Amino acid sequence: MQIGFIGLGHMGKALADNLLKAGHRLTVWNRSPEAAEELRAQGAAVAREPAEAFAGEVAISMLADDAATRAVILDSGALAAARPGLVHLGMATLSTDFVGELLERHRHHGIAYVAAPVFGRPDVAAAGQLNILAAGPAEAVARVQPLLDVLGGRTWPLGEDPLHAAAVKIAGNFMIASAIEAMGESAALAQGFGVEPGRLLEILTGTLFACPVYRNYGGMIAERRYEPAAFRLRLGLKDVGLALSAGQSRQVPLPFASVLRDNLLEAMAHGEGERDWTALADVARRRAGQD
Amino acid sequence: MQIGFIGLGHMGKALADNLLKAGHRLTVWNRSPEAAEELRAQGAAVAREPAEAFAGEVAISMLADDAATRAVILDSGALAAARPGLVHLGMATLSTDFVGELLERHRHHGIAYVAAPVFGRPDVAAAGQLNILAAGPAEAVARVQPLLDVLGGRTWPLGEDPLHAAAVKIAGNFMIASAIEAMGESAALAQGFGVEPGRLLEILTGTLFACPVYRNYGGMIAERRYEPAAFRLRLGLKDVGLALSAGQSRQVPLPFASVLRDNLLEAMAHGEGERDWTALADVARRRAGQD
Amino acid sequence: MQIGFIGLGHMGKALADNLLKAGHRLTVWNRSPEAAEELRAQGAAVAREPAEAFAGEVAISMLADDAATRAVILDSGALAAARPGLVHLGMATLSTDFVGELLERHRHHGIAYVAAPVFGRPDVAAAGQLNILAAGPAEAVARVQPLLDVLGGRTWPLGEDPLHAAAVKIAGNFMIASAIEAMGESAALAQGFGVEPGRLLEILTGTLFACPVYRNYGGMIAERRYEPAAFRLRLGLKDVGLALSAGQSRQVPLPFASVLRDNLLEAMAHGEGERDWTALADVARRRAGQD
Amino acid sequence: MQIGFIGLGHMGKALADNLLKAGHRLTVWNRSPEAAEELRAQGAAVAREPAEAFAGEVAISMLADDAATRAVILDSGALAAARPGLVHLGMATLSTDFVGELLERHRHHGIAYVAAPVFGRPDVAAAGQLNILAAGPAEAVARVQPLLDVLGGRTWPLGEDPLHAAAVKIAGNFMIASAIEAMGESAALAQGFGVEPGRLLEILTGTLFACPVYRNYGGMIAERRYEPAAFRLRLGLKDVGLALSAGQSRQVPLPFASVLRDNLLEAMAHGEGERDWTALADVARRRAGQD
Repeated sequence: MQIGFIGLGHMGKALADNLLKAGHRLTVWNRSPEAAEELRAQGAAVAREPAEAFAGEVAISMLADDAATRAVILDSGALAAARPGLVHLGMATLSTDFVGELLERHRHHGIAYVAAPVFGRPDVAAAGQLNILAAGPAEAVARVQPLLDVLGGRTWPLGEDPLHAAAVKIAGNFMIASAIEAMGESAALAQGFGVEPGRLLEILTGTLFACPVYRNYGGMIAERRYEPAAFRLRLGLKDVGLALSAGQSRQVPLPFASVLRDNLLEAMAHGEGERDWTALADVARRRAGQD
Repeated sequence: MQIGFIGLGHMGKALADNLLKAGHRLTVWNRSPEAAEELRAQGAAVAREPAEAFAGEVAISMLADDAATRAVILDSGALAAARPGLVHLGMATLSTDFVGELLERHRHHGIAYVAAPVFGRPDVAAAGQLNILAAGPAEAVARVQPLLDVLGGRTWPLGEDPLHAAAVKIAGNFMIASAIEAMGESAALAQGFGVEPGRLLEILTGTLFACPVYRNYGGMIAERRYEPAAFRLRLGLKDVGLALSAGQSRQVPLPFASVLRDNLLEAMAHGEGERDWTALADVARRRAGQD
Repeated sequence: MQIGFIGLGHMGKALADNLLKAGHRLTVWNRSPEAAEELRAQGAAVAREPAEAFAGEVAISMLADDAATRAVILDSGALAAARPGLVHLGMATLSTDFVGELLERHRHHGIAYVAAPVFGRPDVAAAGQLNILAAGPAEAVARVQPLLDVLGGRTWPLGEDPLHAAAVKIAGNFMIASAIEAMGESAALAQGFGVEPGRLLEILTGTLFACPVYRNYGGMIAERRYEPAAFRLRLGLKDVGLALSAGQSRQVPLPFASVLRDNLLEAMAHGEGERDWTALADVARRRAGQD
Repeated sequence: MQIGFIGLGHMGKALADNLLKAGHRLTVWNRSPEAAEELRAQGAAVAREPAEAFAGEVAISMLADDAATRAVILDSGALAAARPGLVHLGMATLSTDFVGELLERHRHHGIAYVAAPVFGRPDVAAAGQLNILAAGPAEAVARVQPLLDVLGGRTWPLGEDPLHAAAVKIAGNFMIASAIEAMGESAALAQGFGVEPGRLLEILTGTLFACPVYRNYGGMIAERRYEPAAFRLRLGLKDVGLALSAGQSRQVPLPFASVLRDNLLEAMAHGEGERDWTALADVARRRAGQD
């Protein structure tokens, strides 16, 4: 298939690689050209402007956030230049408000938008094992399904409304952050009684909480191994902000998210924005005077 | 082994059954005599007073809470009557303050105390598959280890200080409550966008959160199936209270536990104390005006 | 003095009236023309575009929020058209981020910006008794001081940085919201014991809390008299949001503001957005099952 | 009148002084005898046991907390020894649960109990200017009213149920703590923008919040003058605990009290338990990395 691909960060690069390997023809665009040049070496065409990536059958975008997506997709004129019948597959994690705005703009230009945010890190993406949350017009989803099968290990269809996929992605990240906080507070509580946090978390992630999120993050918390960051704390703050603003738009109080926001801000104030977001656990320690 | 067993609620009954089946001689005591009579039919002796259960090599107690344990173990004179060399194996979930008091009283009477709270419901206990957190003097733990092997699927040793086992048990329950709240808030968030909570939780417990706590409780939340209660909400409030008071005694702020307490109180105020503690999820719904 | 005045809502109208009465020459602009026409009858000139209000010695703006100020001041081209040497006196309650952006834009056009948000309602404004928080370049503040003396009962100078005035205004509103919440929770607590909230608040506002905020709002809470709204709850949510975003920009956790936000959202979800923000007190009642 | 007086701490001493000056005959008891001896010099009789203070027409108790009151009043046998017709006037700040227990015990012994907790510090007590919250059987309150007129500047009658006075006292202290926290968070927010907290608080306590609680505490926060303690932070934690347990007993969520508890625990963990409870404001600073 002739595909435009916009946004070659760690995730985007891994996804684009897999599409090339699967035999698709790619036209790629990236803000900084180096990543695009690497893909040229693998056979991709390199677009000079985002709009060129909207000239094929499908355009895929995987940009950092609302602001980057606004700049590259909405303000660049790309939608106006899109080929009739094109499907835009948006894979970034975006606010529900902005997805609402995207939908309006796509409707205006007569372009189908499929939201397809993912669970998984770049290494999982490289292995083609992402969990993909897909929502959009049924016919458009069907068109991109072969691509989703290349990009992920499993697609979880969420119906026709792209907001549904956006909301599930945001809720999932909020649940991960909550799990980190719960482990962090528990570790500080145990520590208060002289129990090694590592022992506490070994027991809990070996029994009740024997699932990836708790095992991976629990190990980092136990060892206070916050660098290198698997996911930076300041991005965690951004994601908790997405949950809060999604909740606000539908008048859903989220008290756990409010606690997370305050604690992540405390971590930021203590210079931990670039460390892994499991450093959130150190906030509970600091507050308890354990450092 | 000659064992006294005190407290024949659902959990205690299942444990005592297994000890009898394993060939141990039991002298049982229970506040209401019916449960004790059932065990008499299985070959147990029935004590008229708690003190009689402290006449063997090991006394096991599995009472409802601090107050019941205080009444039956401390105020009954049982410790003063204990056979020299006896080991008291305390399996209830107790506050750390009260475990501290128990330790002092056992020291006073020269009795070894091993704390051995458990993770698992009565059906898991009946199957001999509990996870047991054991802490106490090494020699005493070694003496009761054969019993722990009968009672649980796995023993997690936590050293010589019984408070460590108490703290880990409390931290574990707090983490379960936090998981329920995180799912409840996420479900309300998703619902705000028209996403079926069941679909959200199916995806999350099928991927990032594929572990027993999330799968079991997630199913109940998705179906709003809060009756019959697997664990009553008012007991959940008690357990969150144990986390808060443990934290207070060591000056560890636990903001998630504070949110849980407020929300559980709201549920109590709305008559949900006897429903399953996953009814906590309905607090998030109510606050969002979704009912 | 020749003054442009932009934004003739309840507050702006009262301010403009007082300036006219004090003998100043006004050119007024308002989104909907009715309010401007009223002032024309009192001797004001009516501008057809916001830019015309920037043709005098001072331009005063009193718009609803960031978005209105952005549209009317920044996007209208008014700054580019400003008369050299003009001082812009911004009296609205704005986010600190947006004030930062305003400052940059004013610097770019070489226009002095003085932030002068106020404490007080329209009736206080009409009486010329507002408390005005003023910050900006010393010379510019000195130039507008005679106007501030007309508009308010007292000016509280806050130095040269307009952000200081914005931050104090936001902090003050946050403190009012906190006082309302504290009264609401206390009223629910007292009610739980059968104490009339009105009696509780009569005692407290007659002793420890004998100041205007508590007395006025306490009376409304005691009587649950939320209509007509003195200040609408949805605007209160906006103002708490200003505190949270100001805190986020400087990495200051504000846990009380987080609680306020969640509770205001609950009130919104129950249809109370247009009632007075003291209706926040009903959230505490609802959560306690007192309705 | 022949009065027994129990508890001669700072507050009790000031109250007993005033009763003596007003010509009443006092029999005083105190745990440590020095304070009693001082009053003997002023003409009081000194009791050897608490029971002796229950031999007159009225017994007044002003003890530190539930535990001290339990030990001195309930466990000492004083109630059993009380003179028939005696009225017990309890002026300490006590938990609602414990007041309930006191009521039961007084009923059992046929003694009238009037709850009369106060607002005001020892210096206010010495000046006879306390605000007294009085609740109990009408006839008993009438009997002690002349004493209340000596002890306080104003009595606020709260009906026949002593729990009402206890609840109002607890709610009032909770509102003070909330005011301190609101000022502390606001100060940290302002500081984040470079505004002197002293300037912020000068403005707010000079306008919207011109009442004693804000002015007194605001000054201490502005100067970070936490020693000598006017009211120790660890007692503040105790009082917030009274609000939380009162709320729990009536199923009233108090999210502000939950935040206060967590923050006071953080202060305790950092060694600030003996400083004034306005040191709570430093928690907001610490979390924002402002130290």
